[in-house]
Amino acid sequence: MHAVEIIIAKRDGHELSDEQIRWIIDSYTKGTVPDEQIASLLMAILWRGMNDRELATWTQAMIDSGERIDLSSVTRPLVDKHSTGGVGDKISLPLCPLVAACGGAVPQLSGRGLGITGGTLDKMESIAGWNMMLTNEQMAEQLESIGVVICAAGADLAPADKKLYALRDVVGCVESIPLISSSIMSKKIAEGTQSLVLDVKVGRGAFMKTVDNARTLAQTMVGIGHRAGVNTVALLTNMDTPLGFTAGNALEVRESLEVLSGRGPADVRELTIRLAEEMLLAAGLDITLPEHNPTMALDDGRALDVWNQMVRAQGGDPEAPLPVAAHRREVKADAAGIVTDLDAYAIGVAAWRLGAGRARKEDAVSAGAGVVWHVREGDDVKAGDLLFELFADDESRFDGGLEALTSAIKIGSDRPNARPLVLEKITFVH
Amino acid sequence: MHAVEIIIAKRDGHELSDEQIRWIIDSYTKGTVPDEQIASLLMAILWRGMNDRELATWTQAMIDSGERIDLSSVTRPLVDKHSTGGVGDKISLPLCPLVAACGGAVPQLSGRGLGITGGTLDKMESIAGWNMMLTNEQMAEQLESIGVVICAAGADLAPADKKLYALRDVVGCVESIPLISSSIMSKKIAEGTQSLVLDVKVGRGAFMKTVDNARTLAQTMVGIGHRAGVNTVALLTNMDTPLGFTAGNALEVRESLEVLSGRGPADVRELTIRLAEEMLLAAGLDITLPEHNPTMALDDGRALDVWNQMVRAQGGDPEAPLPVAAHRREVKADAAGIVTDLDAYAIGVAAWRLGAGRARKEDAVSAGAGVVWHVREGDDVKAGDLLFELFADDESRFDGGLEALTSAIKIGSDRPNARPLVLEKITFVH
Repeated sequence: MHAVEIIIAKRDGHELSDEQIRWIIDSYTKGTVPDEQIASLLMAILWRGMNDRELATWTQAMIDSGERIDLSSVTRPLVDKHSTGGVGDKISLPLCPLVAACGGAVPQLSGRGLGITGGTLDKMESIAGWNMMLTNEQMAEQLESIGVVICAAGADLAPADKKLYALRDVVGCVESIPLISSSIMSKKIAEGTQSLVLDVKVGRGAFMKTVDNARTLAQTMVGIGHRAGVNTVALLTNMDTPLGFTAGNALEVRESLEVLSGRGPADVRELTIRLAEEMLLAAGLDITLPEHNPTMALDDGRALDVWNQMVRAQGGDPEAPLPVAAHRREVKADAAGIVTDLDAYAIGVAAWRLGAGRARKEDAVSAGAGVVWHVREGDDVKAGDLLFELFADDESRFDGGLEALTSAIKIGSDRPNARPLVLEKITFVH
Repeated sequence: MHAVEIIIAKRDGHELSDEQIRWIIDSYTKGTVPDEQIASLLMAILWRGMNDRELATWTQAMIDSGERIDLSSVTRPLVDKHSTGGVGDKISLPLCPLVAACGGAVPQLSGRGLGITGGTLDKMESIAGWNMMLTNEQMAEQLESIGVVICAAGADLAPADKKLYALRDVVGCVESIPLISSSIMSKKIAEGTQSLVLDVKVGRGAFMKTVDNARTLAQTMVGIGHRAGVNTVALLTNMDTPLGFTAGNALEVRESLEVLSGRGPADVRELTIRLAEEMLLAAGLDITLPEHNPTMALDDGRALDVWNQMVRAQGGDPEAPLPVAAHRREVKADAAGIVTDLDAYAIGVAAWRLGAGRARKEDAVSAGAGVVWHVREGDDVKAGDLLFELFADDESRFDGGLEALTSAIKIGSDRPNARPLVLEKITFVH
């Protein structure tokens, strides 16, 4: 086999054979095919696409580049979730323990954030002592005893994807639905879950800006999951306006704890319950029974109990105070009116500039930094009302954060229509 | 500037700015932008193309990556030719001294062959003592005194093109008209010629298989030339059937000497004269005058005299016997009939396998190896007539050469239509 022949075949719009796909992924993982050949192949794939068969083989080859975690010792039904990422998207934090509290087992292997969308691991690291590195054995034990882990993916989970993901970033090949789908699904399939619910974000604060693109991505991932034997469904959810009232690592943990305590912002609670229902249904559990019902498990404290057990099992102290940023600024309303627009993207940029996110993989994040907003679309405000609080450890970061927030809110006279949180559900169609 | 932004702009179908193009070519030449980023950019260019302005800037940036040779001391009109390469294409050998004999100065910087199309330097190296390395000063002096040099391009001539050319080969980005055009034209413009005639080959034995593709390539190169101040025209010429009766280094030198002696195969002589006329016209010389008339200069020995002077000036011995391969095989006709087809590509493969060409840049070539054919399309043959002679220094190469030739000739009953040698002339259109 020759890499050039494979590149040329895809470039000219031909299908790649299963053998070609397995060979190129294997060779790249081993390092016998260099970055420049994979770079031009990725651009050709971005241009020409991959059909269902190619995509299934591509994903499987990435899984086969490492280990597939064996969770067969876990007796509860295994079900995971994945979000394509959005501003203020802290849903994994209340959702995973909630599903465990309702009888599922959630092997949530997660990642760090890059750019304006935060990462679950960064948020969890706000908790004193919490350890994100578990062995496969620890993971299986904790899933059986507590029903949930949130931890980092090991180096041997889809190593081909790690190389491809890093390369795509520098060669302008991130925005390809087959490449995005296979990247996400290879890791989720390799982690050993039986069912999977995808939260595909749509809107200004998300990677996918339009419903059409998000639907295509969701359908592609659902197809990959089913072909690999993982029962997969997807919800398309709104990310024009941010979730909850906080963006930032410790700020979002605090808000998640509110939700786990049966309170919290209505949208975060609604989406958490809705995704929990989908996960429990996918896991074959009857959510009309009290022991499997997520609304009840949030309201009676069972979900919070599981959170505390999970944090302790991973070395964390759920009682420890969360980090608070050293400095704070306020933004107040200039004039009275109705909040017609609250832009998730602008708020994400502000939080990122304040230190909540990173520009490069090697950067550290600030646990306390971020933005709290005090209004939502449709709210009435008076002149002088508090709109935003900004938090940073480094005062020099406020200028950039404040600048980003100037375009984050519009105050006008027409009350905007409320947008639904869940836009569509995507299931597998043969 | 960021390479990723440039890649994404081209990927999404936007024009690149002059500044972006100059920055990326300069950074790649210096090595501060790595191969993998250029690889994906090249695939995006192959996909999206470049407009006239982008292409002019891209070509100029490649020229500016090295030196532009100063030939202003040469008082004769400078005119060069370039062929896109074909099987048995020895035209440069008689053509360059012929144009010099008619009053032009021909700075023919040439290359080695790769794959089935031979390289002028490989052919010239059949001549004992001949030296392909000249300084710029030697080049200018010889152009003034003799009117022609055939030599290797120095390392400082369009070094960006050297890197890009090698990369394109391994990342499946050879077949892009903007990339081919800018590669050829950057070297020809940098060598300092004032006028240029392009021989764009079309057909089975050429890189461009269809007239439409060849015309687009020719128009693109002619446009680049004019925008850079080089008076450029192109001929599209047939390469379905090979030129002359020989393919192989020393074999083609011998055939070229026949043409320079006023004899030789009719097609080689015709194309040599036709291209000489175009070059002399482009150089502003009146070919109706005897001193500028190429037919007369071939027939009265002036062109051969210039050849002998050029070879001697570059250390070669024009009297020395040419190398002859150690071994020879014959292929004879099985049955009587008419030659309906003689395939340039198959003959090129045979010559290459016999040792006339190289598979990798580092390989040496055999001077004596190659193929001589004794028939042309439309000829009558009897059973037992000699069709091909094969020459090789290494007997083990005959099997591969003979195998390639089994598909090179078709003998049937219908006389084929003669195909014209020159298909079209392409001039600059604003």
